[in-house]
Amino acid sequence: MISTIGVLTGGGDCPGLNAVLRAVVKTAIGKYGIKVIGFKDGYRGLVTDECRELILNDVSGILDRGGTILGTSNKDNPFKFMITSKEPIEYKDMSDMCVQNLVKHGIDCLITIGGDGTLTSARDFARKGLNVIGVPKTIDNDLSATDITFGFNTAVTTATEALDKLHTTAESHHRVMVLEVMGRYAGWIALESGIAGGADVIIIPEIPYDINKICDKIIDRKSKGRNFSIIIVAEGAKPLDGDVVVAKVLANSPDPIRLGGIGNRLADEIEKNIGVETRVTVLGHLQRGGHPTPSDRILSTRYGAKAVELAVEGRFGKMVSLKGTEITEVTLEEAVGKLKQVPPDNDLIRTGRKMGLCFGD
Amino acid sequence: MISTIGVLTGGGDCPGLNAVLRAVVKTAIGKYGIKVIGFKDGYRGLVTDECRELILNDVSGILDRGGTILGTSNKDNPFKFMITSKEPIEYKDMSDMCVQNLVKHGIDCLITIGGDGTLTSARDFARKGLNVIGVPKTIDNDLSATDITFGFNTAVTTATEALDKLHTTAESHHRVMVLEVMGRYAGWIALESGIAGGADVIIIPEIPYDINKICDKIIDRKSKGRNFSIIIVAEGAKPLDGDVVVAKVLANSPDPIRLGGIGNRLADEIEKNIGVETRVTVLGHLQRGGHPTPSDRILSTRYGAKAVELAVEGRFGKMVSLKGTEITEVTLEEAVGKLKQVPPDNDLIRTGRKMGLCFGD
Amino acid sequence: MISTIGVLTGGGDCPGLNAVLRAVVKTAIGKYGIKVIGFKDGYRGLVTDECRELILNDVSGILDRGGTILGTSNKDNPFKFMITSKEPIEYKDMSDMCVQNLVKHGIDCLITIGGDGTLTSARDFARKGLNVIGVPKTIDNDLSATDITFGFNTAVTTATEALDKLHTTAESHHRVMVLEVMGRYAGWIALESGIAGGADVIIIPEIPYDINKICDKIIDRKSKGRNFSIIIVAEGAKPLDGDVVVAKVLANSPDPIRLGGIGNRLADEIEKNIGVETRVTVLGHLQRGGHPTPSDRILSTRYGAKAVELAVEGRFGKMVSLKGTEITEVTLEEAVGKLKQVPPDNDLIRTGRKMGLCFGD
Amino acid sequence: MISTIGVLTGGGDCPGLNAVLRAVVKTAIGKYGIKVIGFKDGYRGLVTDECRELILNDVSGILDRGGTILGTSNKDNPFKFMITSKEPIEYKDMSDMCVQNLVKHGIDCLITIGGDGTLTSARDFARKGLNVIGVPKTIDNDLSATDITFGFNTAVTTATEALDKLHTTAESHHRVMVLEVMGRYAGWIALESGIAGGADVIIIPEIPYDINKICDKIIDRKSKGRNFSIIIVAEGAKPLDGDVVVAKVLANSPDPIRLGGIGNRLADEIEKNIGVETRVTVLGHLQRGGHPTPSDRILSTRYGAKAVELAVEGRFGKMVSLKGTEITEVTLEEAVGKLKQVPPDNDLIRTGRKMGLCFGD
Repeated sequence: MISTIGVLTGGGDCPGLNAVLRAVVKTAIGKYGIKVIGFKDGYRGLVTDECRELILNDVSGILDRGGTILGTSNKDNPFKFMITSKEPIEYKDMSDMCVQNLVKHGIDCLITIGGDGTLTSARDFARKGLNVIGVPKTIDNDLSATDITFGFNTAVTTATEALDKLHTTAESHHRVMVLEVMGRYAGWIALESGIAGGADVIIIPEIPYDINKICDKIIDRKSKGRNFSIIIVAEGAKPLDGDVVVAKVLANSPDPIRLGGIGNRLADEIEKNIGVETRVTVLGHLQRGGHPTPSDRILSTRYGAKAVELAVEGRFGKMVSLKGTEITEVTLEEAVGKLKQVPPDNDLIRTGRKMGLCFGD
Repeated sequence: MISTIGVLTGGGDCPGLNAVLRAVVKTAIGKYGIKVIGFKDGYRGLVTDECRELILNDVSGILDRGGTILGTSNKDNPFKFMITSKEPIEYKDMSDMCVQNLVKHGIDCLITIGGDGTLTSARDFARKGLNVIGVPKTIDNDLSATDITFGFNTAVTTATEALDKLHTTAESHHRVMVLEVMGRYAGWIALESGIAGGADVIIIPEIPYDINKICDKIIDRKSKGRNFSIIIVAEGAKPLDGDVVVAKVLANSPDPIRLGGIGNRLADEIEKNIGVETRVTVLGHLQRGGHPTPSDRILSTRYGAKAVELAVEGRFGKMVSLKGTEITEVTLEEAVGKLKQVPPDNDLIRTGRKMGLCFGD
Repeated sequence: MISTIGVLTGGGDCPGLNAVLRAVVKTAIGKYGIKVIGFKDGYRGLVTDECRELILNDVSGILDRGGTILGTSNKDNPFKFMITSKEPIEYKDMSDMCVQNLVKHGIDCLITIGGDGTLTSARDFARKGLNVIGVPKTIDNDLSATDITFGFNTAVTTATEALDKLHTTAESHHRVMVLEVMGRYAGWIALESGIAGGADVIIIPEIPYDINKICDKIIDRKSKGRNFSIIIVAEGAKPLDGDVVVAKVLANSPDPIRLGGIGNRLADEIEKNIGVETRVTVLGHLQRGGHPTPSDRILSTRYGAKAVELAVEGRFGKMVSLKGTEITEVTLEEAVGKLKQVPPDNDLIRTGRKMGLCFGD
Repeated sequence: MISTIGVLTGGGDCPGLNAVLRAVVKTAIGKYGIKVIGFKDGYRGLVTDECRELILNDVSGILDRGGTILGTSNKDNPFKFMITSKEPIEYKDMSDMCVQNLVKHGIDCLITIGGDGTLTSARDFARKGLNVIGVPKTIDNDLSATDITFGFNTAVTTATEALDKLHTTAESHHRVMVLEVMGRYAGWIALESGIAGGADVIIIPEIPYDINKICDKIIDRKSKGRNFSIIIVAEGAKPLDGDVVVAKVLANSPDPIRLGGIGNRLADEIEKNIGVETRVTVLGHLQRGGHPTPSDRILSTRYGAKAVELAVEGRFGKMVSLKGTEITEVTLEEAVGKLKQVPPDNDLIRTGRKMGLCFGD
């Protein structure tokens, strides 16, 4: 029998984290009388034992709020914990310390909410014998073990609203407008918001682009009296030809790609090749914030309630997952380390092609 | 080989109609060089031969607009067409006239976008031997042959935003707030927006309610220091006991239920039973309007492009349909006449129950 | 020297109340080191001595939240306080009790945030010799001593968004759509949102309407191919002719007009007179909720900071006020009891007339 | 007597342009029976004689749309018109050609909607004896002859919504978030949205900043447990010390400042000085697009209707202007060439200082 649950939120910010926490707390306390302890700033709080009990009042009014009341961190691997950030940087395995802290608080099961990094640590704790349950989170929607992750719908909505705003300006000024969105390895945000926002060109990491194809599209539109074009590009997009500058950065560096890299590059290439005035907007951190959409609030709530149910039923080492219209679970072993990219025959891509959109190929 | 397609939009207004029309026109003209003729105001325009060619310019800039550029009508059954609206009302079968008009314009296939009524007429035309393809539309999401209909996500978003607004007022004034939303036979909008908007009580037609259970919930919340409650109710909800006033209206009348019927009734019952100040808001027509959400724009676009593809492939008598993440098709024969209600073991209901929500039972 | 300030929020809910509280607390504590005590539910908390100290943490994150963290009440005149709500209802002057409670907590000045009722009590306390400062609040914008009240811009935005939603549906269905908004004695919300939302007819209490003029406008539009019309009506609007049913309710009753009264009446008259399908939406409580707009957040913040400044400078018995672009003050004696109606030569009305809008006269 | 009016929109895109056009057309045609001719892409269309008659149908449904149906251009001085964009760039005075084109179409008065550049050309046409009326437009609100310009409220709303999104992420990650907004010479957008969005630091061109003051503020907040800070900076902000790199770019170049210049610089300085993780978002073109807010729609409508009235009354050489709550007019001679910067004793700055905000000085 479970009497106390621990919970933490790790990785980059994502709309819906608070909704998961609310569902966990309301289900645990309200239905099962289970105590909930929240750790601060992802695994960091588990290492340093910064935590507090979460009661019903703590989660009142947070369903529609972005961010996480627990705080988060995206550099906090407990198995390779950064002891000092000064050179030479030192790491140490603090996982035993984490286990001790859990034991100290009498925690029977730990619910970790996060992306691939956070969930990989969850799996490693499961291998260590800990009772762990994962909840998948990423605005990028690139986790393979679930149909959709929460936060994604909100990010798509933010990006679509940006396209809506750029549209009338592009049309009024007869310009090309480039919107760079998140998606280092997978182009889901660019693809969905590109279709929803009526983009003319969608460039994603999965389909290396030929700049000539993009320019052809712009010129073809001009010839039909459409003196403007809207391009959406995922930050991880790369050209078809040998020029792999951007890809190199991806491969060699733990750092994020410089935001605006690919967007500015595209704009420069277009202006150089065909002389059409082109402007770039980098959506950046706006995609991670804001009120979650109703769809994301619902998904987050279902995930949170399901996670507690799994804990109560003693089904540990699992991650909650959406398959079709049902919330189900997969093992953490299956869940992590597999990137979900946009497949070339994806129905949205096929739909886009039918409608005449250019994907750069 | 298809050279000309006809298209019409029937039934109540729904966000995404224009997005479907845009996808139909862009796919037909852009990809296949097919001419598109749009009929005005649903089947009415087909009867009276009011139509015009739709070109690419007509659908530019309409992706994010509510309504339909073709106009619609919700009393226009071509097989029982109202000849005069004065008493005695006279009806006549005008379906042959419709066929003549289609022939006159050389239309090889008719795409009808609408709800169960519109699609039933489509099926009847198919039985007559016409090449027809249906696109399912209803903000209520109550068509059984597709997982989701476009317009539903936008309606849920509008209802959720209304709950968000009522929430802080309820809390500040220590009131019960009742929001009445659409859903005469199925409670999907109330259910999804109730979960997304953090309602405390969700009342849907599928679960007859006991007013005492609702009052108990309000009192229970008060006892925990929560001096306010949010109730969302579908217009077709009905009490558990023998009192079937509302249901009678449903059964005997072609007219819509008087808006605010059930909402006001609930408020009166609550004030009478437990003396808590209760206010009603009837969302009404706001649910049918507005910019479609990105999700609805995507779904509408996929439906429209798919409908043209079916036409080109000569697969007539079908309705496009979403199953899981794929757009597929079903026969119009299967598609119509079957209401999709919320099943009692629906996962959202189970989630709500885990979180302590009251469903009136 | 001021060392402790009391604060309360009274009257109907209004977006921006929290922003005022935040400004009061941040200015008082941060700049002057003054302690702030908040009373619960308007004057009720002052009578019953329900209060708590407000610290910086209490007002963190509330700038963009609707409602009020202090709670409010709209039946709480401390000079005529309802002792029992059962018949026979008994009232009692509890103002001395209020003064005692203020003294008990060492409060040097009371800041009351509210509409005409709340501010009238503030004036009465000032007459009693209390140090009081008022902050004007009403979504209706009908206080004469300030150019604009906070909450008004948000209410106008909510009403305009509703008109936007109704517009495409009206157009698609060739209907008349009536939107009833707040404004029992003054038509500011109807006027501003009517202009902003492109209404064809605007009916306000200040201009009694002739139903024939409204019907003429609808028919005139039809004759020009505009088969739909949008009407916005303030709840307190009344017909020109002798039929004063609605007006009687206004005069004889302390109760709010039944929502939907005038809207439904207008729709019935239009359908009866000219047979055009007409639908009504009553916006109701949605106008009082929601996130305040940036304009309202700014105005609320300026008001709150100014109120503390007046307290520090010992300028009591005043109400903060916006005149042009400056925040200034007026005496509470001048401020209360004077309704600000829309004058007949208001520039927005003149603008509307130039554009061909119908005001029912 | 006026029988034909010409109209054009010049300069950068701005929400509300379409609302002005709608008001001009509805007032001119509907009230006065005046014909309206619209020129394409600002003065460019006047030079090249690209124009078309605008009828009521052209302006239907555009009240809430961003952009301009006439198109615009921001490099189109008719008195120094770029004949070739290739080196060596050649300019030519085409103002006589403009006058000829106006005469050719029988245009009695030209209404020009634009910012300082567009209005300066309008003044020069007035000096040439042409009947011209100006309508002030700029999202920056930096025209001295009017209290507010349309587009500004929408830009402030977009920037405030961005701050709202960044807020929860900053708080969850304990970061400094920098938002760079428009405002090359005047900080109105940064100031208003900074107050409305709860920024901790507001940096505007009018107040050169000391990086140490900004860092002190961040550290002071940390010491009080507020582990995050929000900074909003206008693109034209500059440091107090001698380092005038950014200013030089301003002075020597006709090109826009590289977006992200000052934002990135601030972030680098903060990270270097106090080692706090800092992220930058550049709002860019999103500020120029989108649906105009109700306030901007109202102001645009009033401006447009007033401009036609001035034309009818023969009061040429004027610009419409908002003073307090009234629409009035000023001469174009007075209106142009005077930048409206934020004065040091501006009430919003004083309010911000009372609340503890840092302005970098």
